[in-house]
Amino acid sequence: MALVRVHNFSISLDGFGTGEDLTFEAPFGHAGHRLHEWMIATRFGAAIVGRTDGTRGVDNLFAERHSPGIGAEIMGRGKFGPQTGPWTDLGTAEEWRGWWGENPPFHTPVFVLTHHPRPPLEMEGGTTFHFVDATPAEALKLAQEAAGDLDVRIGGGASMLRDFLAADLVDWMHLVQVPILLGRGQRLWDGLEGLEDRFDIEATPSPSGVTHLVLTRR
Amino acid sequence: MALVRVHNFSISLDGFGTGEDLTFEAPFGHAGHRLHEWMIATRFGAAIVGRTDGTRGVDNLFAERHSPGIGAEIMGRGKFGPQTGPWTDLGTAEEWRGWWGENPPFHTPVFVLTHHPRPPLEMEGGTTFHFVDATPAEALKLAQEAAGDLDVRIGGGASMLRDFLAADLVDWMHLVQVPILLGRGQRLWDGLEGLEDRFDIEATPSPSGVTHLVLTRR
Repeated sequence: MALVRVHNFSISLDGFGTGEDLTFEAPFGHAGHRLHEWMIATRFGAAIVGRTDGTRGVDNLFAERHSPGIGAEIMGRGKFGPQTGPWTDLGTAEEWRGWWGENPPFHTPVFVLTHHPRPPLEMEGGTTFHFVDATPAEALKLAQEAAGDLDVRIGGGASMLRDFLAADLVDWMHLVQVPILLGRGQRLWDGLEGLEDRFDIEATPSPSGVTHLVLTRR
Repeated sequence: MALVRVHNFSISLDGFGTGEDLTFEAPFGHAGHRLHEWMIATRFGAAIVGRTDGTRGVDNLFAERHSPGIGAEIMGRGKFGPQTGPWTDLGTAEEWRGWWGENPPFHTPVFVLTHHPRPPLEMEGGTTFHFVDATPAEALKLAQEAAGDLDVRIGGGASMLRDFLAADLVDWMHLVQVPILLGRGQRLWDGLEGLEDRFDIEATPSPSGVTHLVLTRR
């Protein structure tokens, strides 16, 4: 049976999935790149930013599970861009097309949850962004139809992933706990008391200093 | 040089050091014993509750570091008892003498931070509770004088430990991250943004499922 999976979702030791003050220059706000340095150092992460080096150890082993078997992703609007409210640049030369350039690292349909739908964006490499105003369950149905027999990835950010967990729509989750204290931003864990009743939780520390957490639904 | 140390301080995956609704029957509120099952299973923890069994593995290795080299402890009033406000039972047969019976597992002077001082309580086995209305720095000075050349342990709870961390009074800290989500209670990490600038942070998972975190001041 196809699964709903989460991969490479980084949180700080105090549980924040992103910082405060998100801008075009700072997609994770005051967190900067600190939540994702572990991933950029891997072969998987290096490829995303156009490098051909990168480590091939434990962190890369986890990171590379991001893509195989995935047929669609669902992401929150905050992951697609820092704008809020109605889109103001549609049809202009500056139209926002996501953080990832013309060939985003998804290579599947991507459903962006937003209260402000807009026409789909077909990118290179198989990624098409669809903008939908939907509940988590409705969005998952769309994504599963698009994915066929393949799995669906929940891409975050934190508040959106929290909603999917609260609705019990996630089967498998890989989190990466980074040993920093952000102090402010979006918390992943709020309102999820007792989640351990639904998931087995395993911790694997990496020599890089991060701790990989794997949550498997019972 | 004598150190200020923290040992066996358990937090949930969402960062709570204790739950909500603390009572005489539930010292950790709705958390119950879940934050400390890992410790009660060890030889060290078994001895505290009067058993002679217990594991001798990784968890016990960490747990037993609690006592050697310690000359005094500082604890918050909430660790001593669930009462708030003025003491109402002094001199009565029901006078509260802590959770631990007549021979508490401290065996040193213990300074209890409270806005309501009361006469010292001399217990068996070398533990004497002193009740002081003091800032963290003032309490530490008292405890260091009592400890002589030995180290001082900061005993918690969460809000009190947070105050000592904010005042940069802690040298070494052993936390135990338990894979449960409490959802509510007292958070350890609030207001400590950037703590990693002052501490090296190492994570060691135990086969029991908990993750030991060791923070060493740079």
